[in-house]
Amino acid sequence: MSERINLSLQQVFDLALRALTANGMGEDHARAIAAVITQGQRDECHSHGLYRVLVCVRSLRSGKVDALARPTLSQPAPSIVKVDAHHGYSLLAFEQGLPLLVEKAREQGVAALAIRNCFHFSALWPEVEAIASHGLVGLAMTPSHAWVAPEGGSRGVFGTNPLAFAWPRAGQEPFVFDFATSAIARGDIELHARQGKAIPLGWGVDAEGTPSTDARAVLDGAMQTFGGHKGSALAAMIELLAGALIGDLTSADSLAFDAGAGATPCHGELLLAFDPQRFAGTDLVAGQQRAERLFAAITDQGARLPSQRRFAARRRAEAEGVWVEQGLLNDIHGLMA
Amino acid sequence: MSERINLSLQQVFDLALRALTANGMGEDHARAIAAVITQGQRDECHSHGLYRVLVCVRSLRSGKVDALARPTLSQPAPSIVKVDAHHGYSLLAFEQGLPLLVEKAREQGVAALAIRNCFHFSALWPEVEAIASHGLVGLAMTPSHAWVAPEGGSRGVFGTNPLAFAWPRAGQEPFVFDFATSAIARGDIELHARQGKAIPLGWGVDAEGTPSTDARAVLDGAMQTFGGHKGSALAAMIELLAGALIGDLTSADSLAFDAGAGATPCHGELLLAFDPQRFAGTDLVAGQQRAERLFAAITDQGARLPSQRRFAARRRAEAEGVWVEQGLLNDIHGLMA
Repeated sequence: MSERINLSLQQVFDLALRALTANGMGEDHARAIAAVITQGQRDECHSHGLYRVLVCVRSLRSGKVDALARPTLSQPAPSIVKVDAHHGYSLLAFEQGLPLLVEKAREQGVAALAIRNCFHFSALWPEVEAIASHGLVGLAMTPSHAWVAPEGGSRGVFGTNPLAFAWPRAGQEPFVFDFATSAIARGDIELHARQGKAIPLGWGVDAEGTPSTDARAVLDGAMQTFGGHKGSALAAMIELLAGALIGDLTSADSLAFDAGAGATPCHGELLLAFDPQRFAGTDLVAGQQRAERLFAAITDQGARLPSQRRFAARRRAEAEGVWVEQGLLNDIHGLMA
Repeated sequence: MSERINLSLQQVFDLALRALTANGMGEDHARAIAAVITQGQRDECHSHGLYRVLVCVRSLRSGKVDALARPTLSQPAPSIVKVDAHHGYSLLAFEQGLPLLVEKAREQGVAALAIRNCFHFSALWPEVEAIASHGLVGLAMTPSHAWVAPEGGSRGVFGTNPLAFAWPRAGQEPFVFDFATSAIARGDIELHARQGKAIPLGWGVDAEGTPSTDARAVLDGAMQTFGGHKGSALAAMIELLAGALIGDLTSADSLAFDAGAGATPCHGELLLAFDPQRFAGTDLVAGQQRAERLFAAITDQGARLPSQRRFAARRRAEAEGVWVEQGLLNDIHGLMA
């Protein structure tokens, strides 16, 4: 294990920002991405932390992503905010759409943010947490690349199709989850394949559709969704809502658009924001108390709320900074040489 | 097996209507419920067919449900339609809220229907299919009674918390799913307990939280969600959105409200309607085509779309009527004696 260096969150942000701008990314894009990378590093979601700088720069160099794209906002209906990312990264588009989404949710009760034509690499929890920071309930979903078979099938149709949700809680972190509707991340299967290790049944099927413990056979076949036919139905819903509904690509379209380049997937994203004040009215406080009793009923029996590991890491990082491997720092500095 | 009698769908409707009104249910409530019972019988969802007449009348006789309640509509925000069912059954409230939900979805792009204070016994697919019949995308969810443990827990917190979704398709049945976020219906576990049969692992835990194949031990312990921590997170989301957000009961509150009476759960329900025309704009047809390619990619590899068994039964029933056991008909006629 290589030496690890302590960095403050500000240092993480500055490093990511410099590496991205040094590689031709527009300042505002780079700031939006560096902020989310810092959140990933802070919460010990390492694959979404500083490591992502390498992935972003590789995608930039592939020439598919427009590093200077200017997102454009429109409002096709009173409760729909639309941002066209114009084939730039999604995060600046989200950042620019969020204020209007918040305004519309408060005004209309519920509102949607549809991001179109964006390259997408980030977790969804930073976005639903951002919605919750305004006292709203957030829901987010995206397709990705068609690597996941429908239940009973043998060929990829769905992406890993994450679904994320956040419920604001007074004076503490929101209730948040963010999960892939695939049984596992594709990277975990690739890791097993590289190490020649067997994978558990339930992660994927071979090219004939037979459930397999052979990681290589599954990479040549297809991944499976979590939760059998129910997870498969949910993955289809995400293709429809965050793809077909908003007139953007499905995971199959996105994989075809990539045409073997191996870039970050390009597609759309759908977010919803609900205003509890408008829904509950005079029952707002009672509703918040019901939610808190729900959370207590879960934790009082020793079960866990989602995201608690992240929040513990966050508290540590905010107090003590983060520890980053020297090798990774060297690789990032290498991008600026 | 008892003799089976062929009935037309009109005869099913008329029988359900007469049995309900004969037991004191208001004509408009009875019509709304009889329509959904007829749909259940038609689609061979037998537990939601004529059998439900017995359950409804039992609930009516328990005195909890207001058989003459007049739902009241309000619009607390431009994209929220609220119907207070005033402790009547949910179906009339849905029927009365639907036209305004459809109007608001078309006007606003996305709209919510929050039903408050309703007794709920029906599947959600008739409601999302009703939304889809207007060319809108529908999503629906409700809590129920707190019988389902969170992942890692041992005590009921969540209801069976169904989630239903419908996507309209030109000239054919919509893409529809409707699943419980519990691993299985409580009735299936009760059936195994009565027959002294073991249940599969994954359905529930005993009172100590240990996964069990003993149906009786699971009924004394708690049911499990489908899909591990992801299904558990989804069940929590439904408590929050269709309970706390709209200021109505969670499944734990609903079970406490029932206070051992064994009546149909009383709580709220949340439905969302999305207008593809407003979301996709000039990409509407392209989006519909993307959805159709997604469905073809699923079925072309021999996997199935959800609800196909129901739709096949529907076509048979519409052509040939349905076959109902004489014993069930006798029981229903007995309610009118």
